[in-house]
Amino acid sequence: MAPQNIHVFLAGSGLIGSALLTKINAQRERLLAEEGIALKVAGIVNTKKMVLGEHLGTLSGWKEELNTRGQKADLAQFVAGMKAMRLPNAVFVDCTASEEIPALYNTILAERIAIVTPNKKGLSSNFKFYKNLKLLASQNHTRFLYETTVGAGLPVLSTIRDFMLCGDRVEKISAIVSGTLSYIFNSFEGNTTLSKAVREAQKLGYTEPDPRNDLNGMDAARKLVIVARECALPMECADVEIEQLIPQGRKKETVKEFLKTLERYDAQFEAKKQRAIARGAVLRFVAEIENGKAKMFLKEVASNHPFAGLRGSDNIFSFTTDHYHETPLIVRGKGAGAEVTSAGVFSDIFKAVRL
Amino acid sequence: MAPQNIHVFLAGSGLIGSALLTKINAQRERLLAEEGIALKVAGIVNTKKMVLGEHLGTLSGWKEELNTRGQKADLAQFVAGMKAMRLPNAVFVDCTASEEIPALYNTILAERIAIVTPNKKGLSSNFKFYKNLKLLASQNHTRFLYETTVGAGLPVLSTIRDFMLCGDRVEKISAIVSGTLSYIFNSFEGNTTLSKAVREAQKLGYTEPDPRNDLNGMDAARKLVIVARECALPMECADVEIEQLIPQGRKKETVKEFLKTLERYDAQFEAKKQRAIARGAVLRFVAEIENGKAKMFLKEVASNHPFAGLRGSDNIFSFTTDHYHETPLIVRGKGAGAEVTSAGVFSDIFKAVRL
Repeated sequence: MAPQNIHVFLAGSGLIGSALLTKINAQRERLLAEEGIALKVAGIVNTKKMVLGEHLGTLSGWKEELNTRGQKADLAQFVAGMKAMRLPNAVFVDCTASEEIPALYNTILAERIAIVTPNKKGLSSNFKFYKNLKLLASQNHTRFLYETTVGAGLPVLSTIRDFMLCGDRVEKISAIVSGTLSYIFNSFEGNTTLSKAVREAQKLGYTEPDPRNDLNGMDAARKLVIVARECALPMECADVEIEQLIPQGRKKETVKEFLKTLERYDAQFEAKKQRAIARGAVLRFVAEIENGKAKMFLKEVASNHPFAGLRGSDNIFSFTTDHYHETPLIVRGKGAGAEVTSAGVFSDIFKAVRL
Repeated sequence: MAPQNIHVFLAGSGLIGSALLTKINAQRERLLAEEGIALKVAGIVNTKKMVLGEHLGTLSGWKEELNTRGQKADLAQFVAGMKAMRLPNAVFVDCTASEEIPALYNTILAERIAIVTPNKKGLSSNFKFYKNLKLLASQNHTRFLYETTVGAGLPVLSTIRDFMLCGDRVEKISAIVSGTLSYIFNSFEGNTTLSKAVREAQKLGYTEPDPRNDLNGMDAARKLVIVARECALPMECADVEIEQLIPQGRKKETVKEFLKTLERYDAQFEAKKQRAIARGAVLRFVAEIENGKAKMFLKEVASNHPFAGLRGSDNIFSFTTDHYHETPLIVRGKGAGAEVTSAGVFSDIFKAVRL
């Protein structure tokens, strides 16, 4: 039996893109032998260079290939070249955090090329744009999959899709969607102060270079919007009510100054923590969707609540539906990182094609 | 655009089968309008009667249809009729607990008819039979899906499949796979005795008519075998090491006598419970797969462990893999019941066809 080909076009060769190429390279022989599937990378584009070819040599040498054979990166040209190749089971994989690439999704889907992405930008930009992409995918019988935009490789969006498909009504979703904020509040226990927990998270590389970009909740809000839209809510990022942990007054501060300023809030957070402890609870920065509204806020959760036992930078998602009413369906685990994200992208590539 | 048809052939019209037909009936119009998918039931067979027809009238009247138009049930004839119809996107759904129907899976898959089932019997019978079914499905490019055999509608087997696909190595799976045993040990707290917890579970309909069939762990072992096989372990039910909670000496007892006998073990379990409490732990009947071995046993788990917080008859699955190493990926929720099981079957039907 002739093997079935899957052709991957990859945008972005940073942490996630590289990890994906490593996985493809490691699994390629096994997939061919055991499943009769030939997984091929037919194009790579990053911010500098691009290369197209039905089968890029040995993938372990993709960096050299990009450097030696690669042309100057040109997104429009990459997409045009990809279309011209007319390869079966073609999947465009956007492993960037670019806002520019999602603008090309519609022309890609219109060519019946599937899209797989962990990039939140397109999915959380305006609702009309999102809705149009879904429509295009459906009209062209093409898949548009983005499981890894929320909870990295955890089965979150696919779980919601299953609820929606069989008519199970989502009553409430409660979650910790930010690995960074999860780490900060999981660490904010015992004698640690909030500013120490933030410094620790920054030191470990869990935060953005400027931790204010995590503390303002915007990245988490994007995820919440993607979750809400999967529940058929026409939500925009601006609709998410976010409790600002730290007043936004002093934007001109450097990161160093900000971390110093943060110490002024320690007493206030210590008081909140002590109030929670007195009630047998802990503090968690929780995202909730209920009655068509989305909000993120600092919440006291009882110490026997599943959110209280969270460790490290784990995410947790709790779905209360008609079917999971008395006790919610819960998914918990690592919610960020190149390994789990690229693994989720890998799975989505297979779900995107009809083998 | 002409709608795409999905043709369902249903075996079993008990609790799960009926709930599935209700779901299909409730979602049919929406699926046609929103997704352009025409979901049709083209055959029903139960232990008494059967009916075949490209589109069975109104599904709300399936019971009448089966009674008035139905012929005497004959499985071989049902399968032959199903083949003869040669319908596109055909899915055979086995909602029985029969051992007889799985024997027909091979002829069904050979006809390129997909199979979806919550029936554990075929999947947990001898490994060669199981392996052959997987091979047949693969050779015929047909899907054989059975997510609901473990954890009802929870994403358990699909999660393992994703690990395997992208080469993530499963180090350990730890789980509570029996809703009944989960309920019994979740209830066995405070002043309750084990015999009281079992009686209560029986009264609520959580146990088999004879609770010994739950307490012996055999049903849970079948699930564990299906999980192990998904991890590519060639395991048989006999390979699962099961700690017998109650000595198996007195099989001739009636259920009533057994429940009385059980009281004799209360003191022994009370002592185990007190030992656990003294160590800040609780008792759970846990299933584990590690180093190619599967076992089920009464385990003390620390009171801040995710298994300790379990409620009702919930299942919980903890996956430790190369990617989810520091903290496991956890899935938790209702692990039994017609609503969640039929919803999971409904989702599998869509995954089984290539729309």
